[in-house]
Amino acid sequence: MRKTGYGQTGCPVVRTLNVIGERWTVLMLRDLLLKGAMKYQDFQESLESISPNTLSARLKFLTEQGIVERRVYEDHPIRVEYVLTRHGRSLGPILAAMRDWGNTHTSQPESE
Amino acid sequence: MRKTGYGQTGCPVVRTLNVIGERWTVLMLRDLLLKGAMKYQDFQESLESISPNTLSARLKFLTEQGIVERRVYEDHPIRVEYVLTRHGRSLGPILAAMRDWGNTHTSQPESE
Repeated sequence: MRKTGYGQTGCPVVRTLNVIGERWTVLMLRDLLLKGAMKYQDFQESLESISPNTLSARLKFLTEQGIVERRVYEDHPIRVEYVLTRHGRSLGPILAAMRDWGNTHTSQPESE
Repeated sequence: MRKTGYGQTGCPVVRTLNVIGERWTVLMLRDLLLKGAMKYQDFQESLESISPNTLSARLKFLTEQGIVERRVYEDHPIRVEYVLTRHGRSLGPILAAMRDWGNTHTSQPESE
């Protein structure tokens, strides 16, 4: 755990940042909340510039944290999907607050 | 602006991350929401391991974004304080959601 100042392990915002304080992580949670289940390739398509190493590391971390569950389906070929656990879905209000702020206080560029 | 996948400049979460998607920025907003006004040294004390360059860059960015206002008081010696603008205070619900999640879903370490 990274420490950042005045007894901050005692700060709930720091403890939240220790789980979701990284940009890709937030976008992966957004995708999981919106889509329900995501394959590895779905993340790669959604997060165009993420490297495979970073994506794998984030999925591993989120699984270890109990935020994401890795489901293996015994199809042919085997299918692997990632879904939010109940613990992971509890992050919904943070993402909703971020979405609402973006909608209300920033403007969409007119063209790419 | 960093682009990250499917028309994401059109994604309100991405647009929010473009403003507050950095760990130190979130902790600076936390301090400003809690304390009201912060001097440069107050941030240094709160965010022990932040470098002066990073702190100055973040303050400049947040001021340019209209999130933070730099107030200069003509005392002897001159006093400079940073406060949230009305636009900056609108980020409160995001920080509150992060605090609530940290309080509910993570536990405070028993000792440092």
